[in-house]
Amino acid sequence: MNWTSFLEGGIEIFGQAVIAIIAFIIAKSIGNKIIKTGFTKMQEQKDISLGRVKTLEKLALNAFSYVLIFVFITIVISIFGLDATGLIAGAGIIGLAIGFGAQGLVSDVVTGFFILLERQIDVGDYVTASGLDGIVEEVGLRTTLIRGFDGTLHFIPNRNISSVSNHSRGNMRALVDMSISYDDNIDEAVKVMQAVCDRIATEDERIVEGPNVVGVQSLGDSDVVLRIVAKTVNMEQWAVERTLRKELKEALDANGIEIPFPHQVYIEKKNA
Amino acid sequence: MNWTSFLEGGIEIFGQAVIAIIAFIIAKSIGNKIIKTGFTKMQEQKDISLGRVKTLEKLALNAFSYVLIFVFITIVISIFGLDATGLIAGAGIIGLAIGFGAQGLVSDVVTGFFILLERQIDVGDYVTASGLDGIVEEVGLRTTLIRGFDGTLHFIPNRNISSVSNHSRGNMRALVDMSISYDDNIDEAVKVMQAVCDRIATEDERIVEGPNVVGVQSLGDSDVVLRIVAKTVNMEQWAVERTLRKELKEALDANGIEIPFPHQVYIEKKNA
Amino acid sequence: MNWTSFLEGGIEIFGQAVIAIIAFIIAKSIGNKIIKTGFTKMQEQKDISLGRVKTLEKLALNAFSYVLIFVFITIVISIFGLDATGLIAGAGIIGLAIGFGAQGLVSDVVTGFFILLERQIDVGDYVTASGLDGIVEEVGLRTTLIRGFDGTLHFIPNRNISSVSNHSRGNMRALVDMSISYDDNIDEAVKVMQAVCDRIATEDERIVEGPNVVGVQSLGDSDVVLRIVAKTVNMEQWAVERTLRKELKEALDANGIEIPFPHQVYIEKKNA
Amino acid sequence: MNWTSFLEGGIEIFGQAVIAIIAFIIAKSIGNKIIKTGFTKMQEQKDISLGRVKTLEKLALNAFSYVLIFVFITIVISIFGLDATGLIAGAGIIGLAIGFGAQGLVSDVVTGFFILLERQIDVGDYVTASGLDGIVEEVGLRTTLIRGFDGTLHFIPNRNISSVSNHSRGNMRALVDMSISYDDNIDEAVKVMQAVCDRIATEDERIVEGPNVVGVQSLGDSDVVLRIVAKTVNMEQWAVERTLRKELKEALDANGIEIPFPHQVYIEKKNA
Amino acid sequence: MNWTSFLEGGIEIFGQAVIAIIAFIIAKSIGNKIIKTGFTKMQEQKDISLGRVKTLEKLALNAFSYVLIFVFITIVISIFGLDATGLIAGAGIIGLAIGFGAQGLVSDVVTGFFILLERQIDVGDYVTASGLDGIVEEVGLRTTLIRGFDGTLHFIPNRNISSVSNHSRGNMRALVDMSISYDDNIDEAVKVMQAVCDRIATEDERIVEGPNVVGVQSLGDSDVVLRIVAKTVNMEQWAVERTLRKELKEALDANGIEIPFPHQVYIEKKNA
Amino acid sequence: MNWTSFLEGGIEIFGQAVIAIIAFIIAKSIGNKIIKTGFTKMQEQKDISLGRVKTLEKLALNAFSYVLIFVFITIVISIFGLDATGLIAGAGIIGLAIGFGAQGLVSDVVTGFFILLERQIDVGDYVTASGLDGIVEEVGLRTTLIRGFDGTLHFIPNRNISSVSNHSRGNMRALVDMSISYDDNIDEAVKVMQAVCDRIATEDERIVEGPNVVGVQSLGDSDVVLRIVAKTVNMEQWAVERTLRKELKEALDANGIEIPFPHQVYIEKKNA
Amino acid sequence: MNWTSFLEGGIEIFGQAVIAIIAFIIAKSIGNKIIKTGFTKMQEQKDISLGRVKTLEKLALNAFSYVLIFVFITIVISIFGLDATGLIAGAGIIGLAIGFGAQGLVSDVVTGFFILLERQIDVGDYVTASGLDGIVEEVGLRTTLIRGFDGTLHFIPNRNISSVSNHSRGNMRALVDMSISYDDNIDEAVKVMQAVCDRIATEDERIVEGPNVVGVQSLGDSDVVLRIVAKTVNMEQWAVERTLRKELKEALDANGIEIPFPHQVYIEKKNA
Repeated sequence: MNWTSFLEGGIEIFGQAVIAIIAFIIAKSIGNKIIKTGFTKMQEQKDISLGRVKTLEKLALNAFSYVLIFVFITIVISIFGLDATGLIAGAGIIGLAIGFGAQGLVSDVVTGFFILLERQIDVGDYVTASGLDGIVEEVGLRTTLIRGFDGTLHFIPNRNISSVSNHSRGNMRALVDMSISYDDNIDEAVKVMQAVCDRIATEDERIVEGPNVVGVQSLGDSDVVLRIVAKTVNMEQWAVERTLRKELKEALDANGIEIPFPHQVYIEKKNA
Repeated sequence: MNWTSFLEGGIEIFGQAVIAIIAFIIAKSIGNKIIKTGFTKMQEQKDISLGRVKTLEKLALNAFSYVLIFVFITIVISIFGLDATGLIAGAGIIGLAIGFGAQGLVSDVVTGFFILLERQIDVGDYVTASGLDGIVEEVGLRTTLIRGFDGTLHFIPNRNISSVSNHSRGNMRALVDMSISYDDNIDEAVKVMQAVCDRIATEDERIVEGPNVVGVQSLGDSDVVLRIVAKTVNMEQWAVERTLRKELKEALDANGIEIPFPHQVYIEKKNA
Repeated sequence: MNWTSFLEGGIEIFGQAVIAIIAFIIAKSIGNKIIKTGFTKMQEQKDISLGRVKTLEKLALNAFSYVLIFVFITIVISIFGLDATGLIAGAGIIGLAIGFGAQGLVSDVVTGFFILLERQIDVGDYVTASGLDGIVEEVGLRTTLIRGFDGTLHFIPNRNISSVSNHSRGNMRALVDMSISYDDNIDEAVKVMQAVCDRIATEDERIVEGPNVVGVQSLGDSDVVLRIVAKTVNMEQWAVERTLRKELKEALDANGIEIPFPHQVYIEKKNA
Repeated sequence: MNWTSFLEGGIEIFGQAVIAIIAFIIAKSIGNKIIKTGFTKMQEQKDISLGRVKTLEKLALNAFSYVLIFVFITIVISIFGLDATGLIAGAGIIGLAIGFGAQGLVSDVVTGFFILLERQIDVGDYVTASGLDGIVEEVGLRTTLIRGFDGTLHFIPNRNISSVSNHSRGNMRALVDMSISYDDNIDEAVKVMQAVCDRIATEDERIVEGPNVVGVQSLGDSDVVLRIVAKTVNMEQWAVERTLRKELKEALDANGIEIPFPHQVYIEKKNA
Repeated sequence: MNWTSFLEGGIEIFGQAVIAIIAFIIAKSIGNKIIKTGFTKMQEQKDISLGRVKTLEKLALNAFSYVLIFVFITIVISIFGLDATGLIAGAGIIGLAIGFGAQGLVSDVVTGFFILLERQIDVGDYVTASGLDGIVEEVGLRTTLIRGFDGTLHFIPNRNISSVSNHSRGNMRALVDMSISYDDNIDEAVKVMQAVCDRIATEDERIVEGPNVVGVQSLGDSDVVLRIVAKTVNMEQWAVERTLRKELKEALDANGIEIPFPHQVYIEKKNA
Repeated sequence: MNWTSFLEGGIEIFGQAVIAIIAFIIAKSIGNKIIKTGFTKMQEQKDISLGRVKTLEKLALNAFSYVLIFVFITIVISIFGLDATGLIAGAGIIGLAIGFGAQGLVSDVVTGFFILLERQIDVGDYVTASGLDGIVEEVGLRTTLIRGFDGTLHFIPNRNISSVSNHSRGNMRALVDMSISYDDNIDEAVKVMQAVCDRIATEDERIVEGPNVVGVQSLGDSDVVLRIVAKTVNMEQWAVERTLRKELKEALDANGIEIPFPHQVYIEKKNA
Repeated sequence: MNWTSFLEGGIEIFGQAVIAIIAFIIAKSIGNKIIKTGFTKMQEQKDISLGRVKTLEKLALNAFSYVLIFVFITIVISIFGLDATGLIAGAGIIGLAIGFGAQGLVSDVVTGFFILLERQIDVGDYVTASGLDGIVEEVGLRTTLIRGFDGTLHFIPNRNISSVSNHSRGNMRALVDMSISYDDNIDEAVKVMQAVCDRIATEDERIVEGPNVVGVQSLGDSDVVLRIVAKTVNMEQWAVERTLRKELKEALDANGIEIPFPHQVYIEKKNA
C-alpha cells in the first residue's frame, strides 16, 4: 500500500469538497431569493388564492433545493470520481445506496406529484393524512409538513400518505345531541329547541344551513336523545356547536325541560 | 465544463417550457367546455339516470386531463429531449421515476376501470370504501372523491379501494329496539306496538314493507327487548327510525307500559 | 409534427370507435336474451335447485359480458392498432396496464372458479365472506355481490374472499340462556323449562331437534344461568330463539321462579 | 375477418364440449361409486378408526374429482386446441391464469398433504383452524370443510391453515371456579367441596382424573375464589363442568356457605 | 388417443404402487422398532435428562419417517417415471408442487434445526410459542406439537415459531398482591404478613427465595395494595401463590386487619 | 487434508488480526479527539444553535467510526484475503452476509440522510418516532438514540422511522377542561374563569397567547364541561396546564361555583 | 438398483459420521475451556465492566460453536460428498435448505453484529426487545436470550429485534400520583408532601434528583391528583416509588388531609 498517495489524495479531496460546498451555499441563497421575490410579485398581481401561492412557493424552494443538491453531487462525482474510486474501493457502496434509496425516494416524489396535480392539499388546509391531523405547513416533493393542533410539527414522507381527508373544502356540519327526560313531552321539547335554532340561524352569520332538530336519535337508559344538525362556514363548526350547546341548555332550563342525570331503580331486599 | 452553453441551454429550455404551458392551458379550457356541453345535451335528450351522467362527465374530464398531460409531456420530451439529456445527466431519474410510479398508477387505473365497468358506484351514491363513508363526488381514473357527512372531502387512490359497500342500491332496513319492563305483559306490549306500526305503514309513504314487531330479541338485565323491523325507500331509513322511536315511545306511555330504567337489588348488611 | 394528420387520425378513430360500440351493444342485448331464455327453460324442465340455476345464469351473463368486451377490445386494437400506435406513442401504456392489471384479475378469476367448482356459495345463500354478511346476489368471475341485511350492496373482488362461511347449508342451532335467582331450586327450574321446551318441540314444525335444557352454564354475579339448545330448519333459528325466550320467560313467571335483577350487598359505614 | 369460419368454429367447439361434458359426468358417477364401495368394505374388514376411513374416503373422492377435471381439460385442449387458439387469440390468457392460479393451488395442496401425512386432523374431529371452530366435515386437497357449532359450514383453503389446534386428541380438562364469602372459613369450604368432588368422581364414568379443589385462585373484590380441576373423557368436559357447577352450588347452600353478591361499603356525607 | 395403452398403463401403475406401499410399511415398522430400542438403552446407560432423550427419540422417528417417504417417492418416480409422464402429461405439476412447497418446508426444517441445536425446547417443557401455551409433546423437523392445558393438541409448523418463551428453565417467581384498608397501619400489616412469609419459607420446600413483602405497590380507590414476591422451584409457582393467598388472608383476619370491599362516598341531594 | 498448514495459517491470521486491531484503536482515539476539538471551536466562534452543533458532532463521530471500520475490514481482507479463502472455504459466507445485510443498512443510511438534510430532528429535541417518545440523544447514520422520560434509552434503526413528530418546533398549546354543575350559570362561570385567565396571561411569561375560555365543550352526564385553551413557550405547556388547573379550581371554589361529583337519580321500588 | 452397494454405502457413512461426531465433541470441550479461561484472566487484569466481559465471553463461545459446526459440516461433505450424492439423490435438498435458510440466518447475524458493535445491550442489562421484557442472559450471533421477571427464558432470533429499549443506561425516573379531596387546600397539601420529599431526599442515597411535587396533574371525578417526580439510581426506581407512596400516605393521614374514596351524588325520586 502506498501511504503517501493515500494521504495526499485525502487532502486533495478535502480541499475540493470545501470549494464545492461554498459554491453550493452561494447558489442556494441567490436561488431562494429569486424564487421568493417571484412568488411575492405573482401574489400581488394575479388572482390566485393565498394557500395555492404559498404551496407553490414552498414547493419551488423545495424542488430547487433538491435539484441543486443533485447537480452538486453530480459535479463532485464527475470531477473527483476517478481518484475517489481509486483511493477508497468502498465508494461503490454510495452508488448502491443511491440505487436502493431511489426506490423509496421515487415513491415519495410520484405521490407528491399527484397530491399537487390533483390539488388534494394546499398550504393552510386542515387535513388528516397518514393518521395525523393538522394544518399543512409545506407540501414538498419528498415530505409533507403538518402542524398538529398541540403545536407538534409532523414530517410525513409522501409515500406514507395513501388517502387524504381534506377538512377545508366546503361547508362543514355541526352536530349536537341533547338529552331530555323520559317524562318530558317530546313534541314540546322539539318546539323549544327548534325556536332556539331558528333564532341562532338568523343571528349567526357563520351558519349556512339549519340548524334543525332532526328527531329522536336514540332511547337511552335514562334519557331520550334528540339530534340537532346544521351546516356552517368552514372551520367554524366547533364554535357553532359550542354556541348551540350553551343556548339549547339554557332554553331547556328556562322551559322547565329536564336534562336528566343517570337513573337507577332500587329494590330493597331484607335477607342476607 | 462549458459554463456558457450550460446557461444558454437553461434559458432556452425555460422559454420553450413557457410556450408549452400556455398551449396546454388553452387546450384544456377548450376541451373542458366541449365535454361539459356534450354531457349537458346528452342529459337533456336521453333517459340515463342523472348520477350516471355526472359520473361519466367527471370521468371524461378527468381522463381528458390525464391524456392532455401525457401528450404535453411527450411533446416537451420529444422537442427538448436531447438538449435536456445533454445538459443535465440526471434526466434519467425522471424516466426511472415514471417507471416506478407507473406501477401504482396502473393499479389505480385498472381498479378504477372495473369500478366503472361493473357500475359499482355512481356520482351521488352513498358508499363505504377503504373505511371511509360518504357521498361520491367524482370517480376518476386514479382517484375517487368522497364527501363525508361532516363535510370532509376524502381523496382515495383507487388501488386502496378493495371492497365497495354501496348503500344506494335498493330499499333499506329500519330497525328499532324497544325495552319494556319484566312486569309488563309481552303480548299486550306487542299488540300496542304493532298497532302503531300498522298505522305508520299506511300513513308514511317512505315505508315499503312492515314495520313489524318480530319478537323478544333479548332478555336484558333490567328489560325485555322487543325488535321492530321495516323496509324503507333508500336513504330514508334513519328518518323512519326516528319517527318509529317517537311514536312507539308515546304509544307505550299512553298504554301504561313502562320503558324501564336500570334496576338493582339492594341487600343491606350491618357488620363493618 | 404533422398537425393535419394528427387531427384526421383522431376523427377516423372516433368514427370507427362509434361503429364498434354500436355493434357491441347489439351483440350484448341479443346474447343476454338467449342466455336468459335458455336458463328459464332449463329451470322448468330439470330438477336443479333454483339457487344453483340463478348462480349459473348470473355467471353465464357475467362471463359472456367479459368475453364480449375482450373480443371487442381485440377487434378495435387489430383494426386501428397501427394508426393509434403511430399517432400516440403512449398507447404502449395500455399494454403495460393490462399486463399489471391481469395479475389481480387472474387471482379474481381463479378464486371465483374454485368457489363455483366446489359449490361454496349459490345465489340466495346467506354467507360471511371477507368480513361481510349477507345474501349472495351474484357470483361473478371477478366480483361477488352480497346484499347486507341493512340493504347495502357489497361488491367483493373474489381475491379478497379467502375463507367462506356459508350459513345456508343444513340445520342451524338455536341457543337461549335463561337466568334464575340463586334462591331458586335449580332442579325445579329445569323441570319447568324442559316442559315448555317439550311442548314447543311438538307444536313448532321449524324445530328439528330439542330444545333441551343442557344445564348450569355459569354461576354469575347475581344469577344462575341455564342454557337451552335446539336445532332448527335453516334460517329459522332467530325466530325459534325469539319464541323460546318469550315462552320460557312466561313459564318462569307463572311458576314463581325469579329472573333476577343485578344484586349488590350494601355495608354502611359511619365515619367520614 | 372471416365471419363464416368464425361462426362454424364456434358451433364445432360447442358440440365437442357437450360430448366431453357427458363423458365427464358418466366417468365421475362411476368412479365415485367404486370409491365409496371400496371404503365401505375396508371399514367392515379392517381395524381402522371410523374417522380415519371417512377422512380417506372424502379425500379419495376429492382427489379423483380433481384428477378427472385435469384429464378432462387436457383432452379438451389437446383436441380443440389449435382451432380454439386460431379462433380466439385470447385463449392465451387461460394459460396465464393457470400459471398464476397454480401458485395458490400448490400451496393449498402441499399444506393439505402435510395435514393428512401428519394426521393433524380427521373427519369428525373438533378443531380450531384459521380462527374458526367446529367439527371437520372433509379434508380435501385444496379446501377443508368445518361445520361450526351454530350449523355454519366453513370452507377454508388449506393455505390459510397455519397452526391447527385439535381438541379431539386425548382427555380434556374441566375447570370450575367457585366464589365464597370473605367471612366463610376457607378450610371448611374446601372440605365440603372436595367431598362433593369425590362423590362425583366415583359416580360419573366420564371423569378420568380428579376433580380436586386446587386452592385459592384469587382474592376478588367481594369473594374468595376457589378453583376445581378435573380430567374428563374427550368432548365431555362441558357436561362435566355443568354437573360440577350444579352439585357444588347445592352443597355450599346445604352447608350454609355463602356464594356472595358484589359488596360495596357506603359512607354517607352530609354537605352538598 | 390410444385408449388400450391408457388403461393398461393405469393398471400397471396401480400394481407397482401397491408393492411399493407394502415395502414402505414394512421398512417403517422395522425402523421405528430399532430407533425406539436404541433410545431406551441409551436412557438406561447414560446420564442425559429424560426430556432430552425423548426429544431426540421423537426427532429420530420423525426424521426417519421423512427420509423413508423421500426414498420411497424417489424409487417410485425412478421406476415408473417415464410411463407415468407419458401417460398423464399432468405429472409435471407434482414437480412444480414440490418446487413451490419446498420453500415453506425448508423454512420449517431450518427453524426446527436451530430450535434443536440451541436446545430452545425439550419434550416436556412448558413453553409459549406462536401465541400458544402448553407442554411440548414432540419437536419434529417440520412441526412442533404442544399440548395445551385444556387438553388441546396444537400442531405448529416450525416456521411459525419466531420467539420461544421457555417456562421450564430455572426457578420461577410467585407474586401475590394483598389489599388492606386505608385505616389500617401499613407497618403493622407488613409485620404480620412478613411473619407468615417467614414461617412458610421454612416449612415449604418448594420455595427457593423469599417470600418477602416488598412494599406499597399502589394506592387504589379503596385499598392500599402490598406486594409479596418469592422464588420457587420450577412449575410450583402457582401452588405457592395459592398457599400464600390462603395463609396471608387468614393471618390478616386473625390480626384484625381488614381486606376492604370497594368504598363509595354518598352525598344526598334533595332537589329533583 | 494438510493439518500443519491448516494450523500455521490459523496462527498467522491471529497475529495479523491483533496488529490490525491495535492500529484501529489508535486511529479511532486520535480521530475522535480531532473531531471533538473541531466542533468545540466551531461552537465558540459561530452562531449555530447548540442542538445543531451537537447533532453534527455526534454524526461526525458516528460516520468516522463507520468509515474506519469499513477501511479496517477492507485492509484486512486485501492483505489476508487469499490465505483466508484458501484456509476456510466458508469465508464466502461473509461476503454473502454483507450483500444481504447491506440492504437493511442502506435503508438506514438513506433515511438517516434525509432526516439530517431536512433537519427533521436535532439533538435535544423532544420527538415521537416509531411509536417512542423522548429527547433525541444522537442522530447516527444507522441508528437514532432517544432517551425516554422514564430514563430508558431507545435504539431505533433509522429505517424504522417513517413519520417523525417533532414537539420542539414552535409554541405549544395548553388545554384544560373544567366541569361545572348543571345548576350553575354558564355565563357567570365563564366570566370568573376568564378573569383568572387574564390575570395569569399578564403574570406568567411562559404564555404566548390566551388563555381563553372557548365555550361549552360538552354536556356530560353530570357536568357542563368548559374548555380553556392557551399557547405557551415550547416545553412549558404542561407546567402552564398545571398552573391553570390549580388557579381555576380555586377561583371556582371562591365564587361558589360547584365542580360536581357524578350524579345519579334513585327511584325506590317496593316489590321484590 | 444395486441393493448391496446401497447397504454398504449406508454402513460406511454411518461409521464415518460417528468418528466425525466424536472429534467434534472433543474439539468443542477443549475450545470452550480455553475461551472461558481467557475471559476469566481478562476480567482479573483489565478494567472492563463485568457486563461487557460476560457479553463477549458468551459471544465468543457462541461464535466458536457456530464456526466448529461449519467446519465440521464442510469436512463431512468434502470427505463423503461424492458417495453420499451418488447414494441418495436427495442430498441436493440440504444445499437448497442452506441456501434458503442462510437468508434468515444472515439477517440474524447482521443485526446481532450491530447490536454488539453499537453496544446496544450487555449481558445483565434490563431491556425491552421484540415486545419482551427482562434481563439479558446472552447476546449470541443468531439468538438473544432474555430472562423475564417471572423466570421465563425468552429465545429471540436477532432479526426479530428492531428497536431496543435499554432500561440500564443512566438514572431512572420515579413517579407517584397522590389524590387529595376537593375540599382540602391544595397549597397546604403540597407543603406537607414537599416536606416529606425533602426529608426522603436527604435520607435516601438511591435518590439522585428531587423528589418534587410538580403540581395538579388532573382534576378527577372525586379527587385532585398531585404528581411527585424524582430521579433515582438505575433499577431503584420501583423501590423509591414504594417508599414515597408509604411515606406520603402517612404524612397526609398525620396532617388530616383526606385521600378520598369515589364520590357520588344521590338524588331521590318518588314516582315509580
